Amino acid sequence: MRLQRILVGRLSTPGTGLIIGILGALFNKRDIILIMRNSERLSLIIRNSEEVLTRQDLASLVDKGKTLKHYIGFEISGKIHLGTGLMCMSKVKDFMEAGVDTNILLADWHTWINEKLSGDLKTIQEVAVGYFTEGLKASLLCLGGDPKKLKFVLGSELYHNNDEYWRLLIEVAKHSTLSRIKRSVTILGRQMGEAIDFAKLIYPVMQVADIFIQNVNIAHAGSDQRKAHVIARHVGPLIPAGYKPVAIHHHLILGLGKPSVWPIPKGKRKQDLWESMKMSKSKPKTAIFIHDKPDEIREKIMDAFCPPQIVEFNPIMDWAKHLVFREGKSELRIKRQAKYGGLVRFSTYAELEEAYKKGGLHPEDLKVGMSEWLINFLEPARKHFAEPKPKEMLARLEKLV
Amino acid sequence: MRLQRILVGRLSTPGTGLIIGILGALFNKRDIILIMRNSERLSLIIRNSEEVLTRQDLASLVDKGKTLKHYIGFEISGKIHLGTGLMCMSKVKDFMEAGVDTNILLADWHTWINEKLSGDLKTIQEVAVGYFTEGLKASLLCLGGDPKKLKFVLGSELYHNNDEYWRLLIEVAKHSTLSRIKRSVTILGRQMGEAIDFAKLIYPVMQVADIFIQNVNIAHAGSDQRKAHVIARHVGPLIPAGYKPVAIHHHLILGLGKPSVWPIPKGKRKQDLWESMKMSKSKPKTAIFIHDKPDEIREKIMDAFCPPQIVEFNPIMDWAKHLVFREGKSELRIKRQAKYGGLVRFSTYAELEEAYKKGGLHPEDLKVGMSEWLINFLEPARKHFAEPKPKEMLARLEKLV
Repeated sequence: MRLQRILVGRLSTPGTGLIIGILGALFNKRDIILIMRNSERLSLIIRNSEEVLTRQDLASLVDKGKTLKHYIGFEISGKIHLGTGLMCMSKVKDFMEAGVDTNILLADWHTWINEKLSGDLKTIQEVAVGYFTEGLKASLLCLGGDPKKLKFVLGSELYHNNDEYWRLLIEVAKHSTLSRIKRSVTILGRQMGEAIDFAKLIYPVMQVADIFIQNVNIAHAGSDQRKAHVIARHVGPLIPAGYKPVAIHHHLILGLGKPSVWPIPKGKRKQDLWESMKMSKSKPKTAIFIHDKPDEIREKIMDAFCPPQIVEFNPIMDWAKHLVFREGKSELRIKRQAKYGGLVRFSTYAELEEAYKKGGLHPEDLKVGMSEWLINFLEPARKHFAEPKPKEMLARLEKLV
Repeated sequence: MRLQRILVGRLSTPGTGLIIGILGALFNKRDIILIMRNSERLSLIIRNSEEVLTRQDLASLVDKGKTLKHYIGFEISGKIHLGTGLMCMSKVKDFMEAGVDTNILLADWHTWINEKLSGDLKTIQEVAVGYFTEGLKASLLCLGGDPKKLKFVLGSELYHNNDEYWRLLIEVAKHSTLSRIKRSVTILGRQMGEAIDFAKLIYPVMQVADIFIQNVNIAHAGSDQRKAHVIARHVGPLIPAGYKPVAIHHHLILGLGKPSVWPIPKGKRKQDLWESMKMSKSKPKTAIFIHDKPDEIREKIMDAFCPPQIVEFNPIMDWAKHLVFREGKSELRIKRQAKYGGLVRFSTYAELEEAYKKGGLHPEDLKVGMSEWLINFLEPARKHFAEPKPKEMLARLEKLV
C-alpha cells in the first residue's frame, strides 16, 4: 500500500514508466500490476480536464480502492451542442473506461428554475426523458462509447418522496453564507444583483444536495459550475454526509463568435470573458449541434471568428485542442489546394499550434479541416437522429424552442 | 348580498347597531340575522389585533360565506411565555369562536433552521409533540377555551413525502427577489448582512409555502412576521395557488426590561425598537412563563421597568391593554393600603390609562394589581403542569434549555 501511494502521488511526472520498471525488478509482479492499473485509471479520469479538486484527494480514493461514483447534471434547455455532446460526454466515456460508476442527472428542476423550455416542468420532463437522453446516447456513440451503459436519473425522480433530500438541502444551506451562494450563481444571475429571483439562489444549493443525496465522490461539470462544487467540498465534512467529494471540471469550449472586446486588453479578467463566450444553445449560429447537417456545419464554421496566427480565444484552435486531440494523439487531415501546400496532417495539438502560430496554416484551411473532421465524427449522431423515434423527438423539440 | 357587503364594510364605525335596527324595520328578519352574524364574526376575528391585510379582503371572505382556514406557526424554542400563551392563543380562541378552522403548525424545521434547542431536529420534534402541545392547551384553558378543539400539525409531517410542498417552495422563490427575502428575515438575521447563513433566507420562503400547502386563507402571526405574509399576498396570485391570503397580525407584548435607549429620542424608528423589546424566552427574567409560580411572577413584575405616568414602552400598561382588557370590558382590581387610596377597580383600559397618566396610580400598585391578575389568570396552566405527564415534559425541557 505504501508503495502505491508514493507512486500515485507522482503519476503525472515524466519517467513514471521507468520508475515502475525499476520497481518491477525489486518488488513482486502483482504489486506492479496494481500500480499500473491505478496509474492508468487516474490518467484517464484526469485527462483533458481543466481542474481537479484535488488530484491528491482523487489519487487517495483510487489508491485506497474506493468505489468511485460520478455524476454530472444537465439542464434540459434545448438542442445538444458540442460542449455537451462531445466535451462533457468524452469525459463521461473516460470515467466509464476507468471503471467509475457514471451517472447522468437530467436536471428538470434546475431547468425549471432557470425558466428554460418556457419554464414548464412537464414539458421539460418530456424532453429530458425523450430527446435529451437520445442525444446523449448518440453523442457517446460518436465518441466510440457504449450508450447502453449510460445511467440516467431524472431530478424529480431523485427528489420524489425523498424527505432526506430536502433535509440535506437545509443542511447545506445552514453551512453556506449568502455571499458564497451569490457568488456561485451564473454570470447572468450575478449581474441581477439583489433583484435576482430567490429560486436562482436555491439552484446551487440543490446542486450541492444532488451530490450528497447520490453519495457521489466525483462531482463533474463544466468549469463554470466549479463554485457549487467548491461549496460541496466546504460543507461535506460539516454535514452528516461527512466527506469532501472530488470535483472534476472539464474545459468549456468556445462558441464561434468574436469576443465582445477584441483584441483583449491586457489585465482583463479572462475567466468571465471566456464564460460569456462559451458555446451556447441560445446562440445557435455560433454553436454546432450534434445532429447538424454537413452543410450547416460547414456554413457555421466558415462564418466563425478565427484570427490568423492567434490561438487565444480562437474557437477552431480551441476545438482542435479539446475535441480533436482530446486523447493526446489523433489526426487532423487538412486538404488544401496544391498551390497552398496540398494535404497536411497533424498528429498532435502541439504540431498544429506551431504551424498555425507561424502562419504555415491559413484560417480558411483550418476551418475546412475542422468542418470535415466534425462532419465525419458526428456521423453516428446524424444517423441516430434519422431513425423515426429520435427524429420525431428532435422535431418536437424544435417546435418548442 | 349587496346589503351585507355595505354593512360589513362599515362594521367598525360606531352606530352599526342603530343602523342594523333601522334596517331591521325595513327588511325581513332573516337578512338581519345574517348581517348580525357576519358582523360579529368579523369583529371577533379582528379584535385586539395590530394589523389586518386587508379588512376589506377579510370582509369579502366573510361576506361570501367562504370557509375560513387559519394557521399560525410556532417555533419550538423553549418555554411558553405570555406572548405565545395568552397573546397568540387569545386570537386563536377568537378565531375558533368565529367559526374559523384554526390550525397550529409546530414548526420543527423552522426551529431547526434557527438553531433553537441545540438545532437537533429529533429533540425539537419530541418537545413539539410533548411539552409545547401541552403548553398551548393549558394556555387555551386559562383563556376559557376548549383545548380539545385545538388542531396541531408538525411541520415535518406536513412536508413528509410531499413533493407538492417543495414545488410550492420553488414557485414562491421564483416570484420573490433576493432583496425582498432579505428584508423578511428577523432583525438578528438582517444584522448579519451577507454573512447570514442561507438556510435563514429559506425560512421565510417556507413560511409562505406553509400557507399555500395548507390552503390557508387567514395567515396569523405576531407583527414581526408580517413581511412573510406580505410576500404570500404578493406571490399567491402569481403561482398555481391563485389567491391572496388575508393576514392578521397580533400585537407583540413587551418584555419587562428597560428599552436600550431611554427616554426614546424623538424621530427614532419605534418599530424595530419595539421588536427588540418584545417578550422573549431567551431573556427569562423579563418574561413570564405560563407555568411560573406565583412568587416568580411577583418577583419578575416587581423588578420590571414601569415609568411613572408614562404609558409608552411601559410593559405593565402594555399587558393591561392587550391581556387584561383584550376583550374590551374586564376588571383589574388593585389592592392598595388604605393610606394610598385602598382598593381600586378599573373596567376599561381607557379608565386605567387616564388614572395612570395623571399619577393617580403608583407603579408599585399597578405592578401588584397585574401580578395578582396574572397569578389568578394563569392558575389553570399551573394546575395542568402539576399533573404527572406535563410536569415531566416541563422538567425534560428545563434540562434542555
